[in-house]
Amino acid sequence: MSSEFELIARYFTRPAPAGMLGPGDDCALLGVPDGHELAVSTDMLLEGRHFLPGTPPADLAHKALAVNLSDLAAMGARPLGCLLALGLEAVHEEWLKAFSASLLAQAQAHDCPLLGGDTTRSLQGTVICVTVLGHVPRGLALRRDAAQPGEDIWITGALGAADVALGMLDGRLERDDAVLAATRTALERPAPPLAFAAQLPGVARAALDISDGLLQDLGHILAASGCGAVLQYAQLPVHPALAAVAPAVRQRAVLAGGDVYQLCFTAAPAQRERLGALAAGMGLRLSRVGRIVAEPGLVVLDAQGRSMPLSERGFDHFV
Amino acid sequence: MSSEFELIARYFTRPAPAGMLGPGDDCALLGVPDGHELAVSTDMLLEGRHFLPGTPPADLAHKALAVNLSDLAAMGARPLGCLLALGLEAVHEEWLKAFSASLLAQAQAHDCPLLGGDTTRSLQGTVICVTVLGHVPRGLALRRDAAQPGEDIWITGALGAADVALGMLDGRLERDDAVLAATRTALERPAPPLAFAAQLPGVARAALDISDGLLQDLGHILAASGCGAVLQYAQLPVHPALAAVAPAVRQRAVLAGGDVYQLCFTAAPAQRERLGALAAGMGLRLSRVGRIVAEPGLVVLDAQGRSMPLSERGFDHFV
Repeated sequence: MSSEFELIARYFTRPAPAGMLGPGDDCALLGVPDGHELAVSTDMLLEGRHFLPGTPPADLAHKALAVNLSDLAAMGARPLGCLLALGLEAVHEEWLKAFSASLLAQAQAHDCPLLGGDTTRSLQGTVICVTVLGHVPRGLALRRDAAQPGEDIWITGALGAADVALGMLDGRLERDDAVLAATRTALERPAPPLAFAAQLPGVARAALDISDGLLQDLGHILAASGCGAVLQYAQLPVHPALAAVAPAVRQRAVLAGGDVYQLCFTAAPAQRERLGALAAGMGLRLSRVGRIVAEPGLVVLDAQGRSMPLSERGFDHFV
Repeated sequence: MSSEFELIARYFTRPAPAGMLGPGDDCALLGVPDGHELAVSTDMLLEGRHFLPGTPPADLAHKALAVNLSDLAAMGARPLGCLLALGLEAVHEEWLKAFSASLLAQAQAHDCPLLGGDTTRSLQGTVICVTVLGHVPRGLALRRDAAQPGEDIWITGALGAADVALGMLDGRLERDDAVLAATRTALERPAPPLAFAAQLPGVARAALDISDGLLQDLGHILAASGCGAVLQYAQLPVHPALAAVAPAVRQRAVLAGGDVYQLCFTAAPAQRERLGALAAGMGLRLSRVGRIVAEPGLVVLDAQGRSMPLSERGFDHFV
């Protein structure tokens, strides 16, 4: 490690919480509570593929950790800690300062300390690989294959904002400064509902986080669980800023827009009151949007109860 | 995920062991034995920086996992499982077949199942990030900061082969086909002593794996533990193939050569017999090479008991 990389290490090294061993040894050490399982996930972000060279480092760090925390939320797991593998072409102190401050702030906010990682020089752009570790009561993790006919389908937060912001930034959609201002936070600073998710084991059944679009992601639950679903389009939680966009744009963003990092989960109807109270207690928007059915397939009904045609690009291969 | 990446997923997806959840959900799930801590480490390998574009995929996969397993060995941890994040410019089936077969074979040999990961298209060469998870009895992990004056210093395996092979391959050393043939396995297929390492908690004290060279790595133990060391050069385990190289080349390779992925550890003299029996029972070469002393600094004594000058490039900033 060059002294430059010792510099990097210093930016990311914080004292580990009691009972854990953080950066500086061959491995990090941590405990998993008795009766709990370990949940672990890793995501890689590559410059040019997942982000542009000029992306503000604070946004980049936020997203790199948020998408991983979202994977923990999707299992109903509480964070234990995270690791960061970082490849950089060069060491720019201002960049590192902003990146590490953002990463460490989010890590602290979610009790997910940075416990270790790897820093290296890249010849080919910035490479970020975050691994998160969490814990969940044994046997109660929210798995994709656990949905059963008759269960309600729920969504946290709101849909569509990140897709509209991305469309306006990459030129797919006509730019509207007011709409962009109201939607880009959803794209750049996703906020997975971790505290709520940690309450779901034993209450909800199947879950995942919406990263590739509601229809595609819900399709994963249906495929893994061997069942179908009926959604009520009018019940879907549309981000308020989407009131100002064309209906076709809004519909695509809501049904197929990615980068949401909110949960789609199923639960028995007997849990409705409990779920409503949990969400209300946290000030979280929670919407019951449909139900799981035995017959395979994913049907979206309009306000008149008619099956909506989902033949647009991005829809048809999941329906 | 495109269908190409579904193909990738198929190459790496194997049934998870009983009690674990493998690839296909938001997180992998696994248990950590009661009374044990989790040990976790991550390493990133970048094309052009850590390996050349033409590196055989089986070698690459072997090394990507071996260097991580070596980090578990260095804590005295037993493997639980691993994650692979893989960025590829294009999907070549032959490459994937060889890469995955090698990775999965080593994973199976060490009871370290591939439990999940991430696959993505890279615009800038192959990117490999492996995360390993292991477990170690609580409080008995081999930490860098645990060495104490009076303890013996031990090394597993042999030193110098990987450095000589690398030197001959990158042109730093004059090529000798017989020596290269006898040393390149050490470079391309490192074999960390995992089974032996798993017996060390409660027997050894401080440990690490030799990746950057003995002097540099032992220096990390000394710095973290606040003590010094005296090594006997004649006791250092030199790889047999190095008999054929010049003494100066051999000395540099033994003292400063990296990519060894064997252990350097400390233990109380009362453990000598037990350690010798453990290693003998596994057919592992184990060498007692010096002792920890209270006075800071790292001294290497020659066969006549004289302090060797360690002023060569690569030595001096650690001594």
